[in-house]
Amino acid sequence: MTQPGVSDVVEAAIESRRQQVNQAIAEELPVKEPTRLWEASRYLLDAGGKRLRPTVLLLMAEALSGVEPGTRSYRSFPSLTGTEVDILSAAVSVEIIQTFTLIHDDIMDADSYRRGVHTVHEEFDLETAILAGDTLYAKSFEIILETGAPVERSNQAIGQLARTCTAICEGQALDVGFEGRRDVSTDAYLNMIEQKTAVLYATSASLPGILLGADDETVDALYEFGLDFGRAFQIKDDLLDLTADTETLGKDQGSDLIEGKRTVVTIHAQNNGLDVDDLVADPELSLDAVVRALEEAGSLTYAEDLASEYVASAKAHLELLDDTPARTLLADLADYVVHREY
Amino acid sequence: MTQPGVSDVVEAAIESRRQQVNQAIAEELPVKEPTRLWEASRYLLDAGGKRLRPTVLLLMAEALSGVEPGTRSYRSFPSLTGTEVDILSAAVSVEIIQTFTLIHDDIMDADSYRRGVHTVHEEFDLETAILAGDTLYAKSFEIILETGAPVERSNQAIGQLARTCTAICEGQALDVGFEGRRDVSTDAYLNMIEQKTAVLYATSASLPGILLGADDETVDALYEFGLDFGRAFQIKDDLLDLTADTETLGKDQGSDLIEGKRTVVTIHAQNNGLDVDDLVADPELSLDAVVRALEEAGSLTYAEDLASEYVASAKAHLELLDDTPARTLLADLADYVVHREY
Repeated sequence: MTQPGVSDVVEAAIESRRQQVNQAIAEELPVKEPTRLWEASRYLLDAGGKRLRPTVLLLMAEALSGVEPGTRSYRSFPSLTGTEVDILSAAVSVEIIQTFTLIHDDIMDADSYRRGVHTVHEEFDLETAILAGDTLYAKSFEIILETGAPVERSNQAIGQLARTCTAICEGQALDVGFEGRRDVSTDAYLNMIEQKTAVLYATSASLPGILLGADDETVDALYEFGLDFGRAFQIKDDLLDLTADTETLGKDQGSDLIEGKRTVVTIHAQNNGLDVDDLVADPELSLDAVVRALEEAGSLTYAEDLASEYVASAKAHLELLDDTPARTLLADLADYVVHREY
Repeated sequence: MTQPGVSDVVEAAIESRRQQVNQAIAEELPVKEPTRLWEASRYLLDAGGKRLRPTVLLLMAEALSGVEPGTRSYRSFPSLTGTEVDILSAAVSVEIIQTFTLIHDDIMDADSYRRGVHTVHEEFDLETAILAGDTLYAKSFEIILETGAPVERSNQAIGQLARTCTAICEGQALDVGFEGRRDVSTDAYLNMIEQKTAVLYATSASLPGILLGADDETVDALYEFGLDFGRAFQIKDDLLDLTADTETLGKDQGSDLIEGKRTVVTIHAQNNGLDVDDLVADPELSLDAVVRALEEAGSLTYAEDLASEYVASAKAHLELLDDTPARTLLADLADYVVHREY
C-alpha cells in the first residue's frame, strides 16, 4: 500500500510534468485555419487528463540519464551519448496518440462524456471528430521527428510509434468484438488490453531508451516495464468503472458493464457461475447491487490482485537501471496507478 | 488531345504498375487476426482503383534513375547513389494513405457506394470503418520505413508523409465547411483541393526524389509537378461527377452537386449568375438539365480549360529531368488524366 507521503510525491511529480506537457501541446498544436478542425483537435486535450504516459516517458528519461527529477529542461535533455534531445516532443507525441484513440473510441462506443465534458463528436459533430482524430494522428508522427535525436534513433522511434498504432487498432477491434460475448477467456482479454492499452505505455517507457541511446537490452526491459504498467493501469481502469462515481470518473459509472464490455472482473465472475449479462439486464437490480454481486464472487479482489502482480513485475524490470530518485519515482508511480481513485 | 495510341500506351503503363502494386498490397496487408478488421482494411483496396498515385511515383523513379520503364524490379530499384531502394513500398504507402482517407471521407459524406461496391461503413459498420482507416494509416507509416533507403532519406520521407496527412485533414475540413456555402471563391476552392488532393500527388511525385537521392531543387520540381497534376486530377474528378454515368463512376452521378459540394464548376456558374443550389433544389429539373445549364453558362469549359492549364504547368516542371521514355510517359499520363472518362 502506498504511504500518504509517497502518494503526495507521486502526485506532485505527475503535476509538474503535466504542466510542461500541456504547455508543449499548446505550442505544438496552435489553433489556426481551419479553426473548427484545430479547435476540435485541441478540445479533449484541453479538457484535462493526467498525462500519465508522458509522465512515464519523462521520468524514464531521467532514470536513464541519471538526472535528478525536474532539474533539466526536457527540451534539451542529455542523452547517453553526449548530445541533447528534445524528449518533451516524444512525450507530447504519445499523449496525442492517446487522445486520437480516445476521440475515435468515443465515436465507436457512442459515449457522450469524457473527462467531465462532451466527447468531441457530441461537442462538434461526427465528421469533425473523425477528422480531429486523424489530424492528431498525423501531428503525432510529425512531432516525434522533432526530437533532434540521431537520425537512426529517430527512425527507430517513429517505427515503434507506427507499430504501436497498428496494435492499438487491433486491440480496439478485439474489444469491440468481445462486446456481449460470453466466451471471452481471461487470456483473450489480457491479449486485448496488451494491444489496446499496454503497448502505448510500453512505447512511452521505451522511447527514452531509443531516443537517448540506451542499448537494446535496456530498451527491451523498459518496454516490458511499460507493458506490465499498462496492464495494471487497464485492470485498475476496469475496476474504477465499477467502483468510482460518475463525477469522479468524468463519465458514466458502470458504462463498460452496461455496454456489455468484457473485463477481467466480469470474466472472473462468469467463470465462477455469475451470469453478469443477466444481472445487468435485470431491471430489479441497481448498478450497486450488481457491483456487490461481483464483489461477493471475489471478482474485484481477483482483479486487484492481478493488477498488483503486474505492478510487481513492472518494478522488477526497473532493477536493470541504476538506483536513482527517478527510478524510485517510477516504481512509486506504478504503485500509485493501482491505488488511485480516479 | 491525347492520341489513341498514346492513350493505349498510358493505360498499359498504369495497368502493369497497378498489378505490381496490388500484389505488394496483398503481401504487406495479409488478412490475420482480428480478421474482421483486416478484411475491412483490405476491402476498398481490393475493390479496384487505378493506382494513379503509385503509378506517378513509380514512373518518376524510372525517370529519375534513367531506367527504361518496366525493366527493373521496384523492390530493388537503383538509386542515384548506387544503393538499391524498395521503391514499391513507397508506392504502396501512398496508396494506403489514399484509401484510408477515402474510407473516412465516405463516413463523413454518408456515401453508400465507391468503386461499384458498398463503402466500408456500409459493408461492415461504422466502428470497423473508422478502425480500418486508422489501421491503414499506421501501416502506411510502417511500410514507408521499409524502403531500405539511407536513414536520413527515410526520415525525410516519413516526415513528408506525416505533413501530407495533416494537410489532407485540413483540406477535408475545408471541403466539409464549404458545403452549402454560396460565398466560396475560386481561390478558396483551389486552396482546398491543393490540400485535400494535390499534396498527396505531390508527395507521390517527390518521394522517389527523396528516397533515391535527388538534390533539393529536383525534389522541389517533382513536388510542384505533383501539385499541378493533382489539381488537374481533382478538377477532372469534379467534372466527371457531373458528366459520367453512375455505372462508370462506381458511385452516384451528380452526388457532389446534390450534397451541395462547391467545385470550380459550380463556383464559376454562381459567379456568372446561375444559382446552382436553386437549380438542384428545383423538383422540375433533372440532373441532366442542371448539367446542361452549367454547360450553357460556360462552366464546364472553364473547368476543362483550367485543368488543361495545370497539366501544361505540370509538364513544364518535368523539363528539369533528362528526356527519357519514363518522362514522356509521365507527361502523357498528365494529359491522360484530364481526358479520362472515369
